[in-house]
Amino acid sequence: MLPETETLEHSSDTTQHRDTPASYEVVRQYTEDLCEPLQLEDYIPQPVDFVSPPKWHLAHTSWFFEEFILVKYLKNYQRYHSDFSYLFNSYYNHMGSRVIRTDRGNITRPGVKEVYRYRAHVNEAMRQLMAENLTPELEELIILGLNHEQQHQELLITDLKYIFGHNPIFPVYKKDFSLTEVKNEESGWISVPEGVYEIGFQDGDFHYDNELGRHKAYLEGFEINRALVTNGEYLEFIQDGGYQNFDLWLDEGWQWVNAGAAQAPLYWHQIDGVWHTYTLGGLQKVNPDSVLCHVNFFEASAFAAWKGMRLPTEFEWEAAAPQLAWGQRWEWTHSAYLPYPRFSKAPGAIGEYNGKFMINQMVLRGGSTATSPGHSRITYRNFFHPHLQWQCMGVRLVR
Amino acid sequence: MLPETETLEHSSDTTQHRDTPASYEVVRQYTEDLCEPLQLEDYIPQPVDFVSPPKWHLAHTSWFFEEFILVKYLKNYQRYHSDFSYLFNSYYNHMGSRVIRTDRGNITRPGVKEVYRYRAHVNEAMRQLMAENLTPELEELIILGLNHEQQHQELLITDLKYIFGHNPIFPVYKKDFSLTEVKNEESGWISVPEGVYEIGFQDGDFHYDNELGRHKAYLEGFEINRALVTNGEYLEFIQDGGYQNFDLWLDEGWQWVNAGAAQAPLYWHQIDGVWHTYTLGGLQKVNPDSVLCHVNFFEASAFAAWKGMRLPTEFEWEAAAPQLAWGQRWEWTHSAYLPYPRFSKAPGAIGEYNGKFMINQMVLRGGSTATSPGHSRITYRNFFHPHLQWQCMGVRLVR
Amino acid sequence: MLPETETLEHSSDTTQHRDTPASYEVVRQYTEDLCEPLQLEDYIPQPVDFVSPPKWHLAHTSWFFEEFILVKYLKNYQRYHSDFSYLFNSYYNHMGSRVIRTDRGNITRPGVKEVYRYRAHVNEAMRQLMAENLTPELEELIILGLNHEQQHQELLITDLKYIFGHNPIFPVYKKDFSLTEVKNEESGWISVPEGVYEIGFQDGDFHYDNELGRHKAYLEGFEINRALVTNGEYLEFIQDGGYQNFDLWLDEGWQWVNAGAAQAPLYWHQIDGVWHTYTLGGLQKVNPDSVLCHVNFFEASAFAAWKGMRLPTEFEWEAAAPQLAWGQRWEWTHSAYLPYPRFSKAPGAIGEYNGKFMINQMVLRGGSTATSPGHSRITYRNFFHPHLQWQCMGVRLVR
Amino acid sequence: MLPETETLEHSSDTTQHRDTPASYEVVRQYTEDLCEPLQLEDYIPQPVDFVSPPKWHLAHTSWFFEEFILVKYLKNYQRYHSDFSYLFNSYYNHMGSRVIRTDRGNITRPGVKEVYRYRAHVNEAMRQLMAENLTPELEELIILGLNHEQQHQELLITDLKYIFGHNPIFPVYKKDFSLTEVKNEESGWISVPEGVYEIGFQDGDFHYDNELGRHKAYLEGFEINRALVTNGEYLEFIQDGGYQNFDLWLDEGWQWVNAGAAQAPLYWHQIDGVWHTYTLGGLQKVNPDSVLCHVNFFEASAFAAWKGMRLPTEFEWEAAAPQLAWGQRWEWTHSAYLPYPRFSKAPGAIGEYNGKFMINQMVLRGGSTATSPGHSRITYRNFFHPHLQWQCMGVRLVR
Repeated sequence: MLPETETLEHSSDTTQHRDTPASYEVVRQYTEDLCEPLQLEDYIPQPVDFVSPPKWHLAHTSWFFEEFILVKYLKNYQRYHSDFSYLFNSYYNHMGSRVIRTDRGNITRPGVKEVYRYRAHVNEAMRQLMAENLTPELEELIILGLNHEQQHQELLITDLKYIFGHNPIFPVYKKDFSLTEVKNEESGWISVPEGVYEIGFQDGDFHYDNELGRHKAYLEGFEINRALVTNGEYLEFIQDGGYQNFDLWLDEGWQWVNAGAAQAPLYWHQIDGVWHTYTLGGLQKVNPDSVLCHVNFFEASAFAAWKGMRLPTEFEWEAAAPQLAWGQRWEWTHSAYLPYPRFSKAPGAIGEYNGKFMINQMVLRGGSTATSPGHSRITYRNFFHPHLQWQCMGVRLVR
Repeated sequence: MLPETETLEHSSDTTQHRDTPASYEVVRQYTEDLCEPLQLEDYIPQPVDFVSPPKWHLAHTSWFFEEFILVKYLKNYQRYHSDFSYLFNSYYNHMGSRVIRTDRGNITRPGVKEVYRYRAHVNEAMRQLMAENLTPELEELIILGLNHEQQHQELLITDLKYIFGHNPIFPVYKKDFSLTEVKNEESGWISVPEGVYEIGFQDGDFHYDNELGRHKAYLEGFEINRALVTNGEYLEFIQDGGYQNFDLWLDEGWQWVNAGAAQAPLYWHQIDGVWHTYTLGGLQKVNPDSVLCHVNFFEASAFAAWKGMRLPTEFEWEAAAPQLAWGQRWEWTHSAYLPYPRFSKAPGAIGEYNGKFMINQMVLRGGSTATSPGHSRITYRNFFHPHLQWQCMGVRLVR
Repeated sequence: MLPETETLEHSSDTTQHRDTPASYEVVRQYTEDLCEPLQLEDYIPQPVDFVSPPKWHLAHTSWFFEEFILVKYLKNYQRYHSDFSYLFNSYYNHMGSRVIRTDRGNITRPGVKEVYRYRAHVNEAMRQLMAENLTPELEELIILGLNHEQQHQELLITDLKYIFGHNPIFPVYKKDFSLTEVKNEESGWISVPEGVYEIGFQDGDFHYDNELGRHKAYLEGFEINRALVTNGEYLEFIQDGGYQNFDLWLDEGWQWVNAGAAQAPLYWHQIDGVWHTYTLGGLQKVNPDSVLCHVNFFEASAFAAWKGMRLPTEFEWEAAAPQLAWGQRWEWTHSAYLPYPRFSKAPGAIGEYNGKFMINQMVLRGGSTATSPGHSRITYRNFFHPHLQWQCMGVRLVR
Repeated sequence: MLPETETLEHSSDTTQHRDTPASYEVVRQYTEDLCEPLQLEDYIPQPVDFVSPPKWHLAHTSWFFEEFILVKYLKNYQRYHSDFSYLFNSYYNHMGSRVIRTDRGNITRPGVKEVYRYRAHVNEAMRQLMAENLTPELEELIILGLNHEQQHQELLITDLKYIFGHNPIFPVYKKDFSLTEVKNEESGWISVPEGVYEIGFQDGDFHYDNELGRHKAYLEGFEINRALVTNGEYLEFIQDGGYQNFDLWLDEGWQWVNAGAAQAPLYWHQIDGVWHTYTLGGLQKVNPDSVLCHVNFFEASAFAAWKGMRLPTEFEWEAAAPQLAWGQRWEWTHSAYLPYPRFSKAPGAIGEYNGKFMINQMVLRGGSTATSPGHSRITYRNFFHPHLQWQCMGVRLVR
């Protein structure tokens, strides 16, 4: 979560608001607060297929409330514009045809201001709906919508970093706001004893379907570090020729290194022999004491091999988490993203939320300085393809 | 050139201004006039590698004056910003490294307003320079810069059409402004007798280096149509199965048809059985009387084969042009873009203007409704790869 | 394993030969027996990157003995030819540079006969070595080499099927030899109770490093079918529109379906409305009673979803296997290929055997009619990328 | 044409045989003579899309006689095998569906011996047909078939060189047979005066449709070299940094250089600082006195620019040819491959021979040491895409 000194003006911690209408206001506002430093132009580009334009995030999160809630629950609701359900669907095949993903950067109209009007229109209708008849079923959907929006808040800020970070003039989003600069608060190793552990979500609060299926897992004893790997440690790996030593890499990782001539984490640039990194506060020297960020699974795994250690499984992570300081980085685990026992997807479009992505991705646990306050929890399962670096991803070691 | 009823507010006909400072004002203003209906968001996208963002055109045309003229000729000139010479170079290897072409759509900063300030800064300096010492050498360079800007005016409007035309909601650039709707004013066949003709530029006005090398060409007698092919004629070709008959197509054209499942010109959409076309004034029914637009060389060549006729060579076109009505479409010729006799490229960056593109492209002659007023002439050689459709390209037949 | 009626002339069941020199002869001969029906031309092509030419398999399996054993253990051993260590390395970075994988189909020289001479040369030297001093360390390496060769036997026959199966005239490898036609011998459901199960290799015989790390796994109770899915059941899925219903597919699976317009397992062809399948005995009608073959993980998973069931995890499979009839198909499990606890790779080239492939692949358990006799076992972990179909892959359901 | 000392056993000079049945025997035999040094394996691979397997050339040239002649003219002719008309069609859409080009390397069956039987079958039927009733119409088609086969003879030997030349062990086709080593016999410059020249085929012998349309072309005076560029001259270009100087290259040429890190002609390898070249007689040092071979149009054009000269147009070449020694290399001209005046393609499949390839290719004139004896002539128009190097292509300069 965002470090103290860098917190954006408004908090969006839904866990502190049992009151759904209030949470709605906080979360919806936070998305717009994140955009406050943007120029209109910054809302538009999609520089690569996995990054979406900020404008699209603003619209799509509203589309979610409109299509999944307002259209069904608010009597006489008029869609803001018939085109929008087509333009701002993401991947829900159940909801009809949609703009193919790589074309999102071409949609200059509707413009940014109209998208804000769309948000206001949806907000107004949502307020009316919540005032009229806030049933538990509806409340559950709204909370899903808010959590969905929080996920897009994190994508919005990391996508924006990708856009700015690939501009040769390295624009500043906000002065003195790095997003990622943070230090370990603890150190040393925790021992977790062999045994059967309970994994997965259990209590009554919000959760995703992929956390369900509370189940037992047998774990061998292990030691896990209280601290995340730092830039300084990773610099040693680089200086020791880590990116040149095939023996440390998975085969597909080695192909990734060679295809892109990789030699450092994303956003690192060697200038006159000194490693710099692009942050949302601008380009700065790599601080060896800061927690490593923007490495992919291949890099995480190669680094662990170089240390003679390994990454935790997601089960080990969940068993150890109560004793850990976490939330600085999404921590790569050595677990593939697969269904828990008894996983079943909901019927209809909501069922497309998680299940269909359970292939070729790795689980990340924890949360990051880009995660919206209150959004993550110990059982939370994040997931990305092993070659991706643009989220705030880091490394915790097990031995 | 722009049809009477559609003319934008300002004329930029340089041929009517022997006065270079006045021409400078007219042409520079016209670029900005073209952008008048744009929202800020429209300036940003690069939907495909051969299309550039409007903002980029605004900046690059200024960069041209800054780098080729102001830096060299205006004493104590300070570049507006050191990054700009890097960001807004197009393809001049002599001028140092540049942003690779496909990344132009990612450069949100400098913003649109700053690019307008850049234009104003360059304009101010240019005015000073022209006031101080307008030598013939300098004048020649300025006129080159203005013609360069006019070329980008045409690209700007056709690139914008590509951006809007690939937005599912088909935005309107300007109501009642189609850009392309125009009818033939003449009809019938002109006979051009066998003989030796003089080809290439000769008098003292502005021209590009690729027109030079006035030379003789022996032509056999031929007949050429006064009118361009219309939508109605092309609809017959479509209805006769033209896109399904391999026998009409060049081999690479047939591959193009199959790779993209092509079945009509760019921007044509069949809606409930009726052909529509996207224009800058919005989607409308295809008018059979309008002159065909947005076909590539493969389509032009297949259509001619279907008619049992052929396209003119660029030499035939130039020989016949004095008797022709032209300027509605860039007309595909059956000539490859190759150097004229005695062609030599200028030393340095200016030499990169034309010569290095003389491979795998076909010559187009004439000019189009998107061409800036006064920009084209009988000896003008435009050129594009045979698969491209997004310029205002049409067909004139020879038999 | 190969069905009774189809067994090739020689058995290569190493488990029946505790005598390593005898096993050596049996296994090495079996590779050549598999090639007996081939014409010289069939040894050459590499139709796609994941398929290797038969000649390459013949040479590479010999290269393995030469480089890993003879060069190190046989005094005064002379390599057959210095080029071979370069040409026939597969993926061992430790062993120096190698021909890139997609170029294997271009290596016409050394010719097939010379490769057989190479095999004979290696065999002669191996016999000498085994006669002189068969230490336990050496024996272990030889048994590894033999198991390695058996893996290539299976690839050889499935690669050959791929080559023949993509020839429009569908050549016959051996009449009355289908390779894949086999029926379920059992039926019904087995119940496996909840509990902690021991997973992984334990006794002293041959195994791969990826099976080691005998460990406990907590399993919930489940039911698993004694029979594999048949062609008949899969035909129902097809006829019910299984390939057209996105809701059944993983997201990447749905992309795979659409990219290739998939509508049936590999080698299936609809001829005049009747489904046929290419077998090594020629094209024949799909037999509904035969066990389904040549589906990828996406298809296996979509089929299970259509049935309202699921695939077993590899742990469930291993727990249930003692009660199961298996060995007809490599059975897709719903487990990603990841290291077991305490997995560590051996130093040097041998360590490249398995560990570096533990990403983006799914585990298959069992064995198939193409697996060499005696090669597989209950703890055996096979693995392939989820889109691949060309191995003898099938489906067993869990509920 | 093949240099004296290297001539293969049989001559296939059709110009010396007015007797068509005799020519038939000579040409058909020559194809098989070219294959005499091959091993069976060498007949199979297609290492890249533009290279065909030798077996395919053997079969396709027979297919041409079968489909275009025997099926139509020989009463009761039975096709050798119904599959063959499908397998060995090249690009004739009129003749039905065909194996897509990149799959030719996968067709191991029918085997090489059966393809030879196919040839014998076709030969036998052709002999019968020629003995029975050799009408002028038939004779014309047969001579077309023989010229077609000669074209494939040249492709066969250059394709084979590509296959061998990409095998890391550099196989020898025939000792003391380089194919390409040849020296200039003349030197100095020829002056060709300004004037109108007659271009294109005129007398009654064999020719292709692309040579027809004898027409006048106006040429300015020019000087053309009697000698082709040598390896020695090209080495100077390399050593002067020719491959590193963008200013010498066409834009697409510069992209080609950078995409493949090109630094020398095809088949050149720098070994311990010394340039070697692969020839069909094996790897040897580059001989500075030999005529340069295996450069593409981009290289030819860059070299000419470096010399401050240029390449001839095909019209200049044809005008100067009577005074030139030619036939050592296919000489890149600066003319695009386009139709002559009055070009019209024949109806049906024969019409696909040339016309449909008239786009994006450059004309080469002359002939090479790989051209079958008697096959070329002064009006002969060969053509390839500008990036291709694998034919025996060289450079003649004009100033």
